[in-house]
Amino acid sequence: MAYEFKIQRRIEFSETDMAGIVHFSNFFRYMEFAEHAFYRSLGFSAMMDDYEPPLGLPRVHAQCDYHHPLRFEQMLEIHLLVRERRPKVITYDFRFRSLQTDPPTNVARGRLTVVCVRRKPDGTFVSTVLPEDVAAKITAAPPECLAP
Amino acid sequence: MAYEFKIQRRIEFSETDMAGIVHFSNFFRYMEFAEHAFYRSLGFSAMMDDYEPPLGLPRVHAQCDYHHPLRFEQMLEIHLLVRERRPKVITYDFRFRSLQTDPPTNVARGRLTVVCVRRKPDGTFVSTVLPEDVAAKITAAPPECLAP
Amino acid sequence: MAYEFKIQRRIEFSETDMAGIVHFSNFFRYMEFAEHAFYRSLGFSAMMDDYEPPLGLPRVHAQCDYHHPLRFEQMLEIHLLVRERRPKVITYDFRFRSLQTDPPTNVARGRLTVVCVRRKPDGTFVSTVLPEDVAAKITAAPPECLAP
Amino acid sequence: MAYEFKIQRRIEFSETDMAGIVHFSNFFRYMEFAEHAFYRSLGFSAMMDDYEPPLGLPRVHAQCDYHHPLRFEQMLEIHLLVRERRPKVITYDFRFRSLQTDPPTNVARGRLTVVCVRRKPDGTFVSTVLPEDVAAKITAAPPECLAP
Repeated sequence: MAYEFKIQRRIEFSETDMAGIVHFSNFFRYMEFAEHAFYRSLGFSAMMDDYEPPLGLPRVHAQCDYHHPLRFEQMLEIHLLVRERRPKVITYDFRFRSLQTDPPTNVARGRLTVVCVRRKPDGTFVSTVLPEDVAAKITAAPPECLAP
Repeated sequence: MAYEFKIQRRIEFSETDMAGIVHFSNFFRYMEFAEHAFYRSLGFSAMMDDYEPPLGLPRVHAQCDYHHPLRFEQMLEIHLLVRERRPKVITYDFRFRSLQTDPPTNVARGRLTVVCVRRKPDGTFVSTVLPEDVAAKITAAPPECLAP
Repeated sequence: MAYEFKIQRRIEFSETDMAGIVHFSNFFRYMEFAEHAFYRSLGFSAMMDDYEPPLGLPRVHAQCDYHHPLRFEQMLEIHLLVRERRPKVITYDFRFRSLQTDPPTNVARGRLTVVCVRRKPDGTFVSTVLPEDVAAKITAAPPECLAP
Repeated sequence: MAYEFKIQRRIEFSETDMAGIVHFSNFFRYMEFAEHAFYRSLGFSAMMDDYEPPLGLPRVHAQCDYHHPLRFEQMLEIHLLVRERRPKVITYDFRFRSLQTDPPTNVARGRLTVVCVRRKPDGTFVSTVLPEDVAAKITAAPPECLAP
């Protein structure tokens, strides 16, 4: 039963904007990047086409608080924590740290709420319970890990 | 004194993902797109390099709730509302509607909080009051406009 | 029989990079943006799911030459020209002009080659002739239009 | 004297489009990603702000030929080769391979031409010779490496 995951990535030039810092929208891509790596670490994929019917994990809520700018070539650590795991819904917290400084700098905090859906042939989605093999591997983090 | 703004854009192919819908991170780009068009409608630019010292408007908070998928070539209406205007900080609410259907479909709701900063020569930022000419043109929307 | 198309768009903040100019990769998005608007102007869509089997127009070649930087909030004009129209393949030329200056500045030149494919149920593609209704509406530009 | 460099990355969900494959524009970001990692491997950065005056390496040409689709979660190998190194200009070739298959699949070939510029205080660029420490470390690949 996993409730956290850490991964690093280096900030790319194409992720910066003319203010000289990472464009704020990219933190949401970083969250999803960490979430998908978390799934892979548990042995499955975010693109659950092999289920019958095919499943998906669209986002229903996303948020981020920005504390410090993040810049080109800095190493970013993304710390994912499972905030809540309900039958159809998982909420993740994310802590972003720049490893450029010693000690690292807390640059941002984020949150994603994803819902499990069946993808119908007409392209629409209907919420459904998480597959058992997925649900069995993910649990909420202990409250003390989630405290500010 | 302006407190709202509406703008439309058509969903582009490069904004979709393999789930066949707009990638959730792009809603944050749409919010900023509407915010910057709002500034232009008032006669100024988000890139306030002409002030001495140069100013900027980085985001300190961003969030979005997703209600319905948005798809390629649909016309999106973004409705910006000024939620709060403080001396150094503006909070915007955004309502996203797909004009594909009649009546339009509420696809998402967003929020951005931006803070006015002085951009120092070393690239760091210090928060500061909004320029008078900007502050004089933007006011909070009446509470009844912001009600759910 | 159409062989050219013009469309404008304003440069967005999220399209810039820390060098203060539009990131070079975005010119390829602008080309596709103009190409898809060209199709809409002819009454069809780039996402040809209604054909049986479903068709698509993936790119097999893309290139761009950059002459001048393009900056935030500048109005960009994209001029699409049909360079060649073969049974399965269309090649487009693109001329990018910034309308910021008078006369406009030629900022870049691009080219895209797209091939018509059938999208098989397993997700792979097989090249096929363009649908008749599409082929009937698109023709190569006269050579004098394509001269440098 | 270096003339080649290899790096891998895993395809992210946000890099795919509704056709279920990597959006073609992202190959240009992958090229720049490999180029910048190549510079770091030689001990310097693409953002040459420490030079007096500050230098930069904008692209003047970019191209890509697409042979096979690239999909979510596949491991991509990017092989950079220095095609030509002139006093002010470097041209790179890129070979993209998906490591999903055994043997790997050649998915695309790319090329970038970058020019060294001085960045003037008004934001404009003037081409200039590459710094000696950079020029001393980069050389053209032997012709047999560049043959198709």
